[in-house]
Amino acid sequence: MPRTLVSQTPQKIGQEVTLKGWVNARRDHGKIIFIDLRDRTGLVQLVCANSASDLRNEDVIEIKGLIQKRPASLINPKLETGEIEVAVSEIKTLAKAEKLPFDMGQETLNVELPILLDYRPLTLRHPKVQAIFKIQETIINAFRNTLRTDGFTEFQAPAIVPAATEGGAEIFPIQYYDHQAFLGQSPQLYKQIMVGVFERVFTVAKAFRAEPSVTTRHLSEYITLDAEFGFIESWEDLMTQAEKLIKAIFKEVAKENSRELELFNASIPQTSTTLPKLKMREAQQIIFERTKRDHRSEPDLDPEDEKEICRYSLEKYGSELIFITHYPTKKRPFYTFADPKDPDYTLSFDLLGRGLEWITGGQRINDYQTLLNKIIERSNKPKDFEIYLQAFKYGMPPEGGFALGAERITMQILGLSNVREASLFPRDMERVDIRLSSTPSNGHK
Amino acid sequence: MPRTLVSQTPQKIGQEVTLKGWVNARRDHGKIIFIDLRDRTGLVQLVCANSASDLRNEDVIEIKGLIQKRPASLINPKLETGEIEVAVSEIKTLAKAEKLPFDMGQETLNVELPILLDYRPLTLRHPKVQAIFKIQETIINAFRNTLRTDGFTEFQAPAIVPAATEGGAEIFPIQYYDHQAFLGQSPQLYKQIMVGVFERVFTVAKAFRAEPSVTTRHLSEYITLDAEFGFIESWEDLMTQAEKLIKAIFKEVAKENSRELELFNASIPQTSTTLPKLKMREAQQIIFERTKRDHRSEPDLDPEDEKEICRYSLEKYGSELIFITHYPTKKRPFYTFADPKDPDYTLSFDLLGRGLEWITGGQRINDYQTLLNKIIERSNKPKDFEIYLQAFKYGMPPEGGFALGAERITMQILGLSNVREASLFPRDMERVDIRLSSTPSNGHK
Repeated sequence: MPRTLVSQTPQKIGQEVTLKGWVNARRDHGKIIFIDLRDRTGLVQLVCANSASDLRNEDVIEIKGLIQKRPASLINPKLETGEIEVAVSEIKTLAKAEKLPFDMGQETLNVELPILLDYRPLTLRHPKVQAIFKIQETIINAFRNTLRTDGFTEFQAPAIVPAATEGGAEIFPIQYYDHQAFLGQSPQLYKQIMVGVFERVFTVAKAFRAEPSVTTRHLSEYITLDAEFGFIESWEDLMTQAEKLIKAIFKEVAKENSRELELFNASIPQTSTTLPKLKMREAQQIIFERTKRDHRSEPDLDPEDEKEICRYSLEKYGSELIFITHYPTKKRPFYTFADPKDPDYTLSFDLLGRGLEWITGGQRINDYQTLLNKIIERSNKPKDFEIYLQAFKYGMPPEGGFALGAERITMQILGLSNVREASLFPRDMERVDIRLSSTPSNGHK
Repeated sequence: MPRTLVSQTPQKIGQEVTLKGWVNARRDHGKIIFIDLRDRTGLVQLVCANSASDLRNEDVIEIKGLIQKRPASLINPKLETGEIEVAVSEIKTLAKAEKLPFDMGQETLNVELPILLDYRPLTLRHPKVQAIFKIQETIINAFRNTLRTDGFTEFQAPAIVPAATEGGAEIFPIQYYDHQAFLGQSPQLYKQIMVGVFERVFTVAKAFRAEPSVTTRHLSEYITLDAEFGFIESWEDLMTQAEKLIKAIFKEVAKENSRELELFNASIPQTSTTLPKLKMREAQQIIFERTKRDHRSEPDLDPEDEKEICRYSLEKYGSELIFITHYPTKKRPFYTFADPKDPDYTLSFDLLGRGLEWITGGQRINDYQTLLNKIIERSNKPKDFEIYLQAFKYGMPPEGGFALGAERITMQILGLSNVREASLFPRDMERVDIRLSSTPSNGHK
């Protein structure tokens, strides 16, 4: 008998079926054993006799049974299959599980973060943990589909790079044959090169940052969603595209993942028809007026400022997202385009939401000589930028772009308290799958 | 006036338009200068007066002009816009290009491989080079779409791994804070873990191999398209899925990229309704009979064998692709499932095509104790597999999967002679963007 998926069971009342999956939970009621069977499409209740008495959570089973309507009093409205159950006639164990180190059968997995990560292959199976990554898949798909529809070409950016091009401290060195190479801190330089090729490009790539501290917002390896495009009329085109993209992502998550959002009691951020925009200096003035915290000559917003300006945006514009623009030139990377009207500030932006940065972007310098001068001015070696500079030497249109971290967006939509929860296998100072011992594992330092 | 794309010009005969793009080629005919303008959608001929006399190849321009039908005698059937041309009234230069190091205006770029890569940001702009990566984009999309339709979930595999789990020699070490970590040689272990979570998964990831030699078929960083799924009835399900996938990729490339295939005079491989299958030992027997080369006790097919068996497949079955199965257990990774009927051979396969391996796959050991024994038997440390082993300790269904290299498939479809041509920014022993000097760049060794 071909396999029936759990999600198909409500349509097969009265039929004999074969189901396959994992024992998600087991409840014994005298001679009857109830099993919640989990497959990739959901959960369903099995009603078993003593034959199930050997079954443990996470055992992999194949069963034959009859799908029955539940009596009205026993309907479970929280379960998509809550109106039926399966009277089991035959059980085959496909693989046994050892005794679990903690209870996996509750609606919310009740373990601390270190345990959540120490047992990642197990904890990822929990329906509420799975939900995080179903949403992340939707975010990444929506990113790709929205841009593709707008004429963007997807490319695969390299991870290994020849030099530390965006500041040397937070970069991982690789022993590359007899040489030293590095893990790319972002696909920035490559996406700009690709504008010279396809005009409009995007990539779903890995960014690697040797973050020197452990925070709730940073990972050492993360998924970056990067877009870049040429022939812009104005740097505001970049914000228009970013706004269109993030709203398309919200729409898609709302459509595809309503059940997953519900599990977290989460909702898509509220946004205005056009997202509000403030210059950084204006934002600092508003923060000063609201809180008497005077950061008006600081070169950046600090985490408290970001939270405050998001509160302001929601109160004033009914939008949980707000663009902050014109960050100081000296705080932004060398390739950032200075505002011709006020060169101490850049044509750059951050999109903030719910107190954190969601997207960062801006116009780039596209003139070869200006770019070369900037590289030298910042004490970089033009030799390290040889390939990158070629793209500009041979004709680059006015261009710009932006980037989003997939884990960060996932975390912010769901209201998770730590970005590690939104990473399948988070890497940080203290962990690569397993916890790193505090002493080096060998002489390689 | 809003921008018109080159591909839209044939629909706008008699209209004034604004076009933007690069000078792809220039031909002077007395007082008239013909420019081939290139944008992301193609090439179109501009007819300019003296005002264009300063223009150089790869200059970025914005023009205004009138779209005119060409006289029948001047139609260029090779160009999608070959029936029209644009009489230019105004030219604005958006960015100047320096003099090119070689001619970019020919139909085929006539440079040797080192030059092709030394000037990658430039050579990627050539329409025939662009075509390679349009096809690669289609291959990757078709991979994703086919599997998603079949209930697979996409996940992002990590690049940084804690240990050398698939043989130590060809792995790149990373200086990871005060520790040593490595670049993953494949997402194999993670995709198996994810079968425990979503049953059917795929990933578009990077694989890193410290290949100790320079060949035409290997890269140090490549794009791996990896799929894995559980609850298989038989290991033959894996070949069925692989065959469905590769045929779907062919169909999509034929549909989306007929023009790109034409540029290379390339065609989709010929396949039979069901792809032929031979055991490795049977293949060796056939090769012996055909060539008198006796490799019948070799543990693998060598490159000449692979070419010969592909020739045989085309002659005998009319298929350029053929499955070779049952490779010896000792030649396959520790997790490969041995044939219960003959444990010296595995339930594994390679899909060969046009003389090279396209896909490799097989059933995996899903029983915890068997897997643990295998790891120990091969002198690996179970400690290095702690996270991986958890997935099996807590219940893993019968499962398997396969992997394709995106560059390899692109190369094989187009008949390229070196896989580097199918990599945007190829990394190998001798190059990471720029050529690596023969002496180490510092003491890190």
